[in-house]
Amino acid sequence: MSAGAGNGAVNRRFVLAHRPVGLPQVDDFRLEVTPRPEPGPGQLLVRSRFISVDPGTRGRLGDRETYAQPLALGEVIQAATVGTVEVSNHPRFAVGDWVAAAFGWQDWGLSDGRGVRVIPDNGLPPSTAIGVLGIPGLTAYFGMLEVGAVKAGDQVLVTSAAGAVGSAAGQMAMIEGARVVGVAGGPTKCGWLTRELGFADAIDHRQATDMTAAVAAACPNGVDVLFDNVGNAMIDSVLPLMNRGGRIVVCGQMADYNQPQPEAVGLKNTRAFIGQRLTMRGLVAFDYYREYPQAWARMTDWIRAGRLRYREEVIDGFAALPEAFIGLFTGENLGRRVIRPD
Amino acid sequence: MSAGAGNGAVNRRFVLAHRPVGLPQVDDFRLEVTPRPEPGPGQLLVRSRFISVDPGTRGRLGDRETYAQPLALGEVIQAATVGTVEVSNHPRFAVGDWVAAAFGWQDWGLSDGRGVRVIPDNGLPPSTAIGVLGIPGLTAYFGMLEVGAVKAGDQVLVTSAAGAVGSAAGQMAMIEGARVVGVAGGPTKCGWLTRELGFADAIDHRQATDMTAAVAAACPNGVDVLFDNVGNAMIDSVLPLMNRGGRIVVCGQMADYNQPQPEAVGLKNTRAFIGQRLTMRGLVAFDYYREYPQAWARMTDWIRAGRLRYREEVIDGFAALPEAFIGLFTGENLGRRVIRPD
Repeated sequence: MSAGAGNGAVNRRFVLAHRPVGLPQVDDFRLEVTPRPEPGPGQLLVRSRFISVDPGTRGRLGDRETYAQPLALGEVIQAATVGTVEVSNHPRFAVGDWVAAAFGWQDWGLSDGRGVRVIPDNGLPPSTAIGVLGIPGLTAYFGMLEVGAVKAGDQVLVTSAAGAVGSAAGQMAMIEGARVVGVAGGPTKCGWLTRELGFADAIDHRQATDMTAAVAAACPNGVDVLFDNVGNAMIDSVLPLMNRGGRIVVCGQMADYNQPQPEAVGLKNTRAFIGQRLTMRGLVAFDYYREYPQAWARMTDWIRAGRLRYREEVIDGFAALPEAFIGLFTGENLGRRVIRPD
Repeated sequence: MSAGAGNGAVNRRFVLAHRPVGLPQVDDFRLEVTPRPEPGPGQLLVRSRFISVDPGTRGRLGDRETYAQPLALGEVIQAATVGTVEVSNHPRFAVGDWVAAAFGWQDWGLSDGRGVRVIPDNGLPPSTAIGVLGIPGLTAYFGMLEVGAVKAGDQVLVTSAAGAVGSAAGQMAMIEGARVVGVAGGPTKCGWLTRELGFADAIDHRQATDMTAAVAAACPNGVDVLFDNVGNAMIDSVLPLMNRGGRIVVCGQMADYNQPQPEAVGLKNTRAFIGQRLTMRGLVAFDYYREYPQAWARMTDWIRAGRLRYREEVIDGFAALPEAFIGLFTGENLGRRVIRPD
């Protein structure tokens, strides 16, 4: 079955073929071509224009419940999507509307309207609705501002700092008046953080043989907020440097997602929890959905004012989805990665 | 030098002779006899009647800062004390007053009044001022009610549940309407929890070969609040059973205090932090000192009403201090252990 250019007459989709062991492989995903769905009364049909790949999806490919139910074998891979309404039998949607939804890795989405949101005309590219204004940006917002409770003068360390979540989280901490250091892989990402986004410093984890020493050098006044996307090894190396009353935001566990559970590496420097009165909390942005409108309004203002910048990497071609996803775990992406089906 | 019966004319004291490696040994402590101090203008002299032994003191015997500065070699071992004012040149204290202070492992305390509190006439034995109404009880209070934020209907697990802190914490959770299970060592302690204090169940950790399975059996509806006094291995075994939004109160790390840092056992089941939106926070009761008066008032009411029960083990003889302290780590105490100098 070819994933060549879609003609809109059929629905290409990737389903879960095998549960990955370790790093996902291309053949863990199976391409299927099915008829284009026909909307019934009250339904609308959406053609996906941008499809996301997210590290967090890894957790749903295994057979254990994480923060979402595991996908069944044969199910379409779950993902956020931005598309255009092509047929509408629903009063709230008009043909041509740009909408955000979660139709997954497929060309077409059929819906009764639930979970579909018309993207407001905010002057920003529609793809931002699943990027800096989507779950990545919202995760950064609630993670840094609510869970991290960042405030002026805080010393903040963000890991996977050049990613969609990390880069937004770091900038929001700066907006609040914090000093922010990022951890990222390679000189390109680190240079982007310090030269373009205004991070105080950036640590290249590919060069840092002793992460604790590297963080101590970049954060001479300790760490008040650790916003972590990496996992246990990273948190453990920062724990001895946390300041009294410090907050650890467990936002992602990228390095651990492909490991068997329990993790091979454990948190050992836990004596700091009492000694420094630390709080560590896990975060899922969905929990804050009632506060989304306010978050969107503030983030849109920050983007327009040039205070919240983002980078999108658009990959053309539906067939690229599995490889684009797998590449997230080897750190090849810079900022938000989305696929534009051909 | 003998630690035989004190005659009040001299000051016996135990000082830190060596920094312990692993479990403290008796000869890590050195007995000294010094002159009884003479109070100057504005000072008072207190004779200790009860001296505490606390697991948390272990952290100050090493050379690394924990939540308090390490003791210097030759310094008197720090401890809470209850005593009587024998000489007073201070307007706030009268001879005969019962006072709570922290004069450490010695017969006599000299003070300008700072850190010395007259024990109110509440009808309870004065020793409770360093027990259920002292740091152990206050730690339980702020740990369970503020950090743990326990509420009616919560499923609560308390470890070292027969200890001074754990037994108070568990009962306070019951007062708030929670279902409480305790972990303790041996049938005597477990029986005390269930038959006398009203715990829903008790797990004997000496019998439980698989702690996760034992907790799952005793807490069939999962765990909302884990109030832990033990350390990493215990927390790790409960993490897979935590309910959404669960709180882990890091109150003590008894099993880890005698280990080299970093701990040999790490927290590995950390994926639950995101999946279940867990919060883990370390606690030191001193941080809440502004709220002590309210806590004392409520706890005194609960004790009088028979809702907060405590057990004190009084050991006679100043010389018993080192062994009584070491015995805490082998679990030989039931409830609060205090020494009454002869």
